[in-house]
Amino acid sequence: MPQITRSDIDQMDKLYRINLINSCAGYKSANLISTQSVDGLTNVAVFSSVTHLGSNPPLLGFITRPAVVPRNTYENIKETGKYTINHIHHKITKEAHHTSAKYPKEISEFDKTNLEREYKDNFAAPYVKGCPVQIGMQFVSEYLIRENDTILIVGQIEHLYIHDELLENDGFINLIKAETATINGLDGYAIPKKHNRYSYQRPK
Amino acid sequence: MPQITRSDIDQMDKLYRINLINSCAGYKSANLISTQSVDGLTNVAVFSSVTHLGSNPPLLGFITRPAVVPRNTYENIKETGKYTINHIHHKITKEAHHTSAKYPKEISEFDKTNLEREYKDNFAAPYVKGCPVQIGMQFVSEYLIRENDTILIVGQIEHLYIHDELLENDGFINLIKAETATINGLDGYAIPKKHNRYSYQRPK
Repeated sequence: MPQITRSDIDQMDKLYRINLINSCAGYKSANLISTQSVDGLTNVAVFSSVTHLGSNPPLLGFITRPAVVPRNTYENIKETGKYTINHIHHKITKEAHHTSAKYPKEISEFDKTNLEREYKDNFAAPYVKGCPVQIGMQFVSEYLIRENDTILIVGQIEHLYIHDELLENDGFINLIKAETATINGLDGYAIPKKHNRYSYQRPK
Repeated sequence: MPQITRSDIDQMDKLYRINLINSCAGYKSANLISTQSVDGLTNVAVFSSVTHLGSNPPLLGFITRPAVVPRNTYENIKETGKYTINHIHHKITKEAHHTSAKYPKEISEFDKTNLEREYKDNFAAPYVKGCPVQIGMQFVSEYLIRENDTILIVGQIEHLYIHDELLENDGFINLIKAETATINGLDGYAIPKKHNRYSYQRPK
């Protein structure tokens, strides 16, 4: 098991480094974030950085890079305060991944893929139809990560839609049944088939 | 697919809410973070919030809650600046999950589980022996998330060890071969068996 050092990383070919560092921290969440500008342009983009921040209040975070892609997501969130987070499930991984292509703001990824908008409960951003878990989010705050000029977007959950059979008696959402994907690196999508749950742990 | 609203969430039983919100954002990374205090006490704890922040410089983040468990991890990082991130693989999910038990600082989780310390290249924190990917991290900065008093810890990669057969020609680390776990909610561990990789996407 050879050691790769920081100076090795700094000297790598750019794409090699991106693949390596994107896959080194383990599996990532696989979500489509959808937004709508005040003038009605919709956007949907794959994100692998959506992270649980806390349950009370219910907060989720994700990382965006405002100066580059996916700028549309960031701009729309700043305009309207609303966005949706939608689980990428096994049937849409290829379509979802295509949203990483760099389309101009005037072109909606919904019109370039088989992904469909779903509006409900008067929410100002569309959901992605058919996703087993759909979350309506309200922007709360942003934190500039000065080390690389990325931004942590913090939002609170306003609406949560979960396919019935996925929700267990204790609140656990069964992602195996949902056939939700998980992302390896930049472009690897896996659908886990089985999990083990462990009980609450106490010192022994 | 009934709607769960924010007020429903706020009124839930605490454990139900924790299970629900922890599983709603999809799969999470499964890592053991290990640290050592200046007086030599070692700590190892499971974290599901390790997230890729950027590749150049190579930065990873994770969320901690300093006022409660796992305080030892945070304190040791602030003391020494060093920590290690180690992939939880299929053989150690149960042992890894046990590190979520609340041990006092004087008791090392390494002494209460079958997890073993591994010291190498004079790094000031131990790695977890046998993990397919091990990362030596230098603390860079922290951001207080005021909305719930959690902290985003930002660190840079100093050392990276990857089992030989996992590293592909383009820098992609094959987590299927690594048998790295992914976490569903608080306590569900899955080992994905197969993935599809998609190519770089351009507008069509």
